[in-house]
Amino acid sequence: MGDHDEQGVSRRGFLKTTGLGLGVAVGALVLGPSAVSAAESGASTPVAEGPFPYKDLDPREGMLRGHAGYWKSGCAYGAFYGITSMLREAVGGPYAQVPYRMLAWGRGGGANWGTLCGALTGACAAINLVAADADVNKLVGELMGWYSTHPFPSDEATKLAVTGSFKQTAKDYPKIELIKTVSKSPLCHVSNATWIAASGIKLPDDRRKERCARLTADVVAKTVAMLNAYKAGTFVPVYKVDEETEICLACHEPDQEGKMSCVECHEPHEL
Amino acid sequence: MGDHDEQGVSRRGFLKTTGLGLGVAVGALVLGPSAVSAAESGASTPVAEGPFPYKDLDPREGMLRGHAGYWKSGCAYGAFYGITSMLREAVGGPYAQVPYRMLAWGRGGGANWGTLCGALTGACAAINLVAADADVNKLVGELMGWYSTHPFPSDEATKLAVTGSFKQTAKDYPKIELIKTVSKSPLCHVSNATWIAASGIKLPDDRRKERCARLTADVVAKTVAMLNAYKAGTFVPVYKVDEETEICLACHEPDQEGKMSCVECHEPHEL
Repeated sequence: MGDHDEQGVSRRGFLKTTGLGLGVAVGALVLGPSAVSAAESGASTPVAEGPFPYKDLDPREGMLRGHAGYWKSGCAYGAFYGITSMLREAVGGPYAQVPYRMLAWGRGGGANWGTLCGALTGACAAINLVAADADVNKLVGELMGWYSTHPFPSDEATKLAVTGSFKQTAKDYPKIELIKTVSKSPLCHVSNATWIAASGIKLPDDRRKERCARLTADVVAKTVAMLNAYKAGTFVPVYKVDEETEICLACHEPDQEGKMSCVECHEPHEL
Repeated sequence: MGDHDEQGVSRRGFLKTTGLGLGVAVGALVLGPSAVSAAESGASTPVAEGPFPYKDLDPREGMLRGHAGYWKSGCAYGAFYGITSMLREAVGGPYAQVPYRMLAWGRGGGANWGTLCGALTGACAAINLVAADADVNKLVGELMGWYSTHPFPSDEATKLAVTGSFKQTAKDYPKIELIKTVSKSPLCHVSNATWIAASGIKLPDDRRKERCARLTADVVAKTVAMLNAYKAGTFVPVYKVDEETEICLACHEPDQEGKMSCVECHEPHEL
């Protein structure tokens, strides 16, 4: 059974999915069997296991969609929807067959468990759709590093909020300035706890949710900027782990998996 | 622009992606404009934003695929491939248009950052494809809780390994018994560090990788068992946070997001 995945769906399945049975059948009448074979051969193939086509996207439009998506179904949905809905419009094709909702589970660090920030979960899945296998880790690693060192929410996101530029959604959002914090971690738990400690605004508060909606917008904008640069051949990852973590990893790298700051959870010890 | 996502992709984008422009254009010559309109209308329908159809899956077959997928492209790819390749064969249709590779970024807790265990990342995306919006958190939360308290790798996975039942892959795998550990966390970093500390086997070692390959197999088997029960109407989540964490959350729940064990990273304090 293991090798079946590389083979095609049935022609019937394809025609049903695309709704093009009629057009292709008529094409056969005019062009003869060889044209149909070509069409069938394309038709019976599952989606290719390679990068989807890409077109330059607008980071600002991505912010609007990421923010709206957050208020619809959470951070992971917001980020994935923000990027892939623009790709559906710009490129179409395979993007239209990947449901926006499939990354929604990442909300609150995964069903509110506080693990990886859901905005990253959604953005990383979008990156993986666009980037070649050999480049995925570079782009994802850079995004995680940027996230860990960036003050959220950005001035740009707050400006869009206070000027009422974000799209209206089912739930109106607080149009106020919000304090910025650096999470020093890609984990939702740390990101939220850090901001909550600094702002005094608790988790269930709409202002805290709005902070995460703006953060989602920021993650979409950064991801889009990275992907635009990547496709233009100008992407260069710049993130490096901090010096303290580098010292830990000099000995402990083979003892664990990860690039998160060690002293966020572990007490430093004498060398 | 925000509502465009529910509408179709442009005809141009679709024709370019499917490579079917010629067939449709010829269809237009024969059938006239109304037939082309019908084809366009069907062609531009995006995948439905709801659960995909499901059929009961075999957990043992899932283990074989999860293990093979791990050795091909990592834990997250392995878990997502393990589940969705079976669904492609059993159900087909929309599953054939979601690329296996899109969750591969989750490897090593996300591009080797050590955040959420990639086997969970892959499995949770598959859960989200199958489950209704209102049920996703219940299933994902149960999987995270189970993972945090389960000794990996399971006896069943080790049996498949030592008897040579796992599929041959490009890289041969160590067919030996491996020590079991409970991670007390869904994080890759903690999961690996715990096992490495107990086994004395370091991160780059093939035996450590095989531990994660078997863990991936176990996560697939658990997810498949949960989904079978969910679809049969018999799924009941049983995970509860441990007593120590419950005491912490009694005060600190609004200060943070998450259900991970607090004392894994924080020093307990006087109440």
